[in-house]
Amino acid sequence: MSYQIPLEEETRDLGFGSVVTRESRQRLLNRNGTFNVERTGLSFWSSLSPYQSLLNMPWWKFHIVIALFYLTANLVFALAYYFCGPAALEEQSGGPLPSFLKAFFFSVQTIATVGFGHIHPVGVAANLIVTIESLFGLLSFALATGLMFTRFSKPTAKILFSDKAVIAPYRGIKAFELRIANARKNQIMELQAKVLFSWLEGPAHRRVRRFDNLTLEREKVVFFPLSWTLVHPIDEISPLKGLTPEDLHNSDAEFLVLLTGIDETFSELVHARSSYKSRELVWDAKFEPIFNPPTPSHHISIDIRKLSSLIAAREDT
Amino acid sequence: MSYQIPLEEETRDLGFGSVVTRESRQRLLNRNGTFNVERTGLSFWSSLSPYQSLLNMPWWKFHIVIALFYLTANLVFALAYYFCGPAALEEQSGGPLPSFLKAFFFSVQTIATVGFGHIHPVGVAANLIVTIESLFGLLSFALATGLMFTRFSKPTAKILFSDKAVIAPYRGIKAFELRIANARKNQIMELQAKVLFSWLEGPAHRRVRRFDNLTLEREKVVFFPLSWTLVHPIDEISPLKGLTPEDLHNSDAEFLVLLTGIDETFSELVHARSSYKSRELVWDAKFEPIFNPPTPSHHISIDIRKLSSLIAAREDT
Amino acid sequence: MSYQIPLEEETRDLGFGSVVTRESRQRLLNRNGTFNVERTGLSFWSSLSPYQSLLNMPWWKFHIVIALFYLTANLVFALAYYFCGPAALEEQSGGPLPSFLKAFFFSVQTIATVGFGHIHPVGVAANLIVTIESLFGLLSFALATGLMFTRFSKPTAKILFSDKAVIAPYRGIKAFELRIANARKNQIMELQAKVLFSWLEGPAHRRVRRFDNLTLEREKVVFFPLSWTLVHPIDEISPLKGLTPEDLHNSDAEFLVLLTGIDETFSELVHARSSYKSRELVWDAKFEPIFNPPTPSHHISIDIRKLSSLIAAREDT
Amino acid sequence: MSYQIPLEEETRDLGFGSVVTRESRQRLLNRNGTFNVERTGLSFWSSLSPYQSLLNMPWWKFHIVIALFYLTANLVFALAYYFCGPAALEEQSGGPLPSFLKAFFFSVQTIATVGFGHIHPVGVAANLIVTIESLFGLLSFALATGLMFTRFSKPTAKILFSDKAVIAPYRGIKAFELRIANARKNQIMELQAKVLFSWLEGPAHRRVRRFDNLTLEREKVVFFPLSWTLVHPIDEISPLKGLTPEDLHNSDAEFLVLLTGIDETFSELVHARSSYKSRELVWDAKFEPIFNPPTPSHHISIDIRKLSSLIAAREDT
Repeated sequence: MSYQIPLEEETRDLGFGSVVTRESRQRLLNRNGTFNVERTGLSFWSSLSPYQSLLNMPWWKFHIVIALFYLTANLVFALAYYFCGPAALEEQSGGPLPSFLKAFFFSVQTIATVGFGHIHPVGVAANLIVTIESLFGLLSFALATGLMFTRFSKPTAKILFSDKAVIAPYRGIKAFELRIANARKNQIMELQAKVLFSWLEGPAHRRVRRFDNLTLEREKVVFFPLSWTLVHPIDEISPLKGLTPEDLHNSDAEFLVLLTGIDETFSELVHARSSYKSRELVWDAKFEPIFNPPTPSHHISIDIRKLSSLIAAREDT
Repeated sequence: MSYQIPLEEETRDLGFGSVVTRESRQRLLNRNGTFNVERTGLSFWSSLSPYQSLLNMPWWKFHIVIALFYLTANLVFALAYYFCGPAALEEQSGGPLPSFLKAFFFSVQTIATVGFGHIHPVGVAANLIVTIESLFGLLSFALATGLMFTRFSKPTAKILFSDKAVIAPYRGIKAFELRIANARKNQIMELQAKVLFSWLEGPAHRRVRRFDNLTLEREKVVFFPLSWTLVHPIDEISPLKGLTPEDLHNSDAEFLVLLTGIDETFSELVHARSSYKSRELVWDAKFEPIFNPPTPSHHISIDIRKLSSLIAAREDT
Repeated sequence: MSYQIPLEEETRDLGFGSVVTRESRQRLLNRNGTFNVERTGLSFWSSLSPYQSLLNMPWWKFHIVIALFYLTANLVFALAYYFCGPAALEEQSGGPLPSFLKAFFFSVQTIATVGFGHIHPVGVAANLIVTIESLFGLLSFALATGLMFTRFSKPTAKILFSDKAVIAPYRGIKAFELRIANARKNQIMELQAKVLFSWLEGPAHRRVRRFDNLTLEREKVVFFPLSWTLVHPIDEISPLKGLTPEDLHNSDAEFLVLLTGIDETFSELVHARSSYKSRELVWDAKFEPIFNPPTPSHHISIDIRKLSSLIAAREDT
Repeated sequence: MSYQIPLEEETRDLGFGSVVTRESRQRLLNRNGTFNVERTGLSFWSSLSPYQSLLNMPWWKFHIVIALFYLTANLVFALAYYFCGPAALEEQSGGPLPSFLKAFFFSVQTIATVGFGHIHPVGVAANLIVTIESLFGLLSFALATGLMFTRFSKPTAKILFSDKAVIAPYRGIKAFELRIANARKNQIMELQAKVLFSWLEGPAHRRVRRFDNLTLEREKVVFFPLSWTLVHPIDEISPLKGLTPEDLHNSDAEFLVLLTGIDETFSELVHARSSYKSRELVWDAKFEPIFNPPTPSHHISIDIRKLSSLIAAREDT
């Protein structure tokens, strides 16, 4: 009674498991590539990843966090100086500042290592706080400036996906097609594409989500300077064979697109993902050519604005 | 008399060699993924890797190291200023500090490049020390702040392993199973798993440790947003075929789990390891479903606290 | 009516599509490895990649950008101090500077955290600006210095390509050959080469650009300490078989060379590209040996200046 | 007259070419992994790689370079202040320094952004130089500190190779063996080994250097916590079959060892190389076991000092 490991299972199950059927009508993958999932039960500390949060928040939020941190740190140290008494900080001359403000601005000059010196610490206590604040300032700014630069320099491949995917005529049969382009100036090398088809199967009370890989006419491009139309020919063995728009809608179909390439500037792997639900699929259409008319410079030139432009396509085109 | 290289040896020996049999009853791999091995005879300097130590020590220890370094450096430079004589540092005004304290706080202001100036160097000797201390301060803080940021930003994939592995019913036969989940918010892509089975073989006086690879139902997931149950079906060719709990105990069995994936945020390879001894294996149990009931938001949702939850499983399930 | 996916298409089309035929007589790939393409229609902000621009501009331009930024920031803050009124900055002694210049130089001392203190802020307004400028200075310099170091340390594999490619005699037949060398001291490991042949096909009014891979005698070298001659033997199945110089010219032939290796110092993937048009191809020539005569040190030694040196080659060599 | 590309050539030629025969008796690869080659004819600027030089020079040299740079920069700026005339820098009080020394120490306080202020700039000229020096200081220190940290944190896999390789008895035949160990605490994963055999062939006046790959009993280890003995069994198809010590000497044999792995701490590829000439090969010996006797802690423990220890091995062992 020999047993064979069902290898074909491997490509059909992506780690979601069959339970996901309960969540029908929700996409697995959002258009922007994030997953539509949730993990509960992680302890606060274990799920906390301050670095990633600080790296991925929008710039305005990051600046607010930095400013608040700077303010808070200075307030705390200002209080410390303040509690050392009025003689702890001597102001050289000029308009006499109120005691707490003097402590606050002195703290600023210390934490940022400016140190004008027109206010200076007097006595052991104030000098000790300066000792601590200098070190604290240098180390905190190491984090702030490191984050600043990492945010600025993080390679963000931005691959544009056409708004819709199409079912287009293709060499006598039909094909599932979508179009992508690189929105950045950096070159992406060895770009690989995978398109997964996900659908519900079985009787209404016990539907199971299935996954299948859609074979692409071309799965990899050596370089990606222009646009690329991903083409899955709907041949005899395609899981899309014979399906109607209603079938796709009823089986809650979703097309998951996964891209992996190498950003040449940083020599780093970059990933991009998107997904198309049946309502984002246009039947009997094809993509408008994206190439610009020849220019005097004879560069090959494409118009990114046409990435999602469709034209009607009759069966016999 | 032709000779054939025994290629099957390759997967059975992992670089430990047969001598490890002497150390029976000790695990090779700890639960947290570190190796249970020791290397002696390395010279102090050659085994020293200050960067790695400073990178991997706990935060509290790191802060103590930094603080001690800061203190020591300032004490040394304070001594230098002190030996230049009382006239080397002139204090502008304010409460006169004892001579050594003045030198110490002046050193602080110099090493951190604060430089208030209410104490300032006088004469060539003190100025020369300032010249050296400024450079020393800038370079040392480069190391301290670089370490600070690297520690903060180091990608630490934290993959949770179920406390126990199980022998569960599986499609008419049984399977060795364990469950993992990602404890971090970052996505891990292309996660690959390898499970190795290690056991002692041969007569008591000359037992040899053997290794074998356990074939998994699925060895790789394209992405890993939820949990993943690693399943090794105990089929006819499985090295676990027919083994009882006693067999595993007597042969000092150990299951080594090796994971490799790509952290999407940093585009870096991440590794995770763990191991299960026979006492960490539960027979005739299976993992409780980890999915939460459907939420109003219809997100797919799992409860990480259930990662290790087991339920009894009868043969005929 | 079964349909077969034309797999051989995959290697023949590189993501350019057939429309590129309109742009005949223009090379696809420039000699320096950049693509001869253009993308229009990207919004200004989405195509903007300040980090990459700042990373890839020439050093003199980078220094100008930094200097202008420094100047502008100081002018803005100087204006702010200036508008706080003449009493906001008190100058200790020395030659009295004009009011705006005083504000400007004070700003310099603040933004760079020098803080001599002979000019110092008086009153809440000036002190608040100092608070902001210190933080601004620290964060801006984080970007400037990070860019500075990244530019300095960026691994730039510089692989030299011979000026011309040749059609040389080779073991009774002919071969397409070109020669490369590493112009940097760093080692490149696992260097892989791909040579693509691109040409126009079909009747004049509907010519289609085709691509084919040229099989190399050796596609990879384990290490690359000297020079490497890439050799494509023009055998029976070569797409170059039987072509004359006129054929290559008329079909607008282009040879694209793609190299990928691992820079050992940085453990990073490095890429290099170049291309040869038919006018950069020399027939019946071969490369002059690049090795120097034995030296007293007995090092193996090559002379990079001979990289492109050709010698005539008769059929029967 | 069909032509076949001689694929077996590929593994036999490593990019050195046959000309290297002139340099007989010199090793291709030094024991420390550097190549014994030279490239002449590179222009000074194109071969210059200041970053790599600064990264790879010894620490003492690096510190001297930094100190000299610091000194030179301060001397240049000191001269600039000096030429602004005696009134350009006003010293507040204290022992009056000679004019040039005052300028020098002021420059130090400016370039390091300490800015005590007891010496301060007076007039537009001196203030302008301060403006320039502050920026220069910040940018230069960015390079210096970046280099400092990169040097400190560079992953340096240090793999120890046994001093000698051996020809040892092995399962009834003989084997070429060498032993390696990891001298660092960091884990190396997926370590792959390649051993190449290089020798001279042909008549004395036209000897050609050949290369061949030596098949290893095991070419890869999943992890490398202890030592690893690389074993090439000298079977019927081994290029070493039937060779005597004299043969190896006369053919100027060299064994090149190439290792590639992944440093787990940094997730980076690491490389190590070494080579053995015939005089570094011991016949009829084998490696002494490297394992320590069982310890109370029952750790598996090896003694790195025994890495190169040999014991005599008779044919019939």
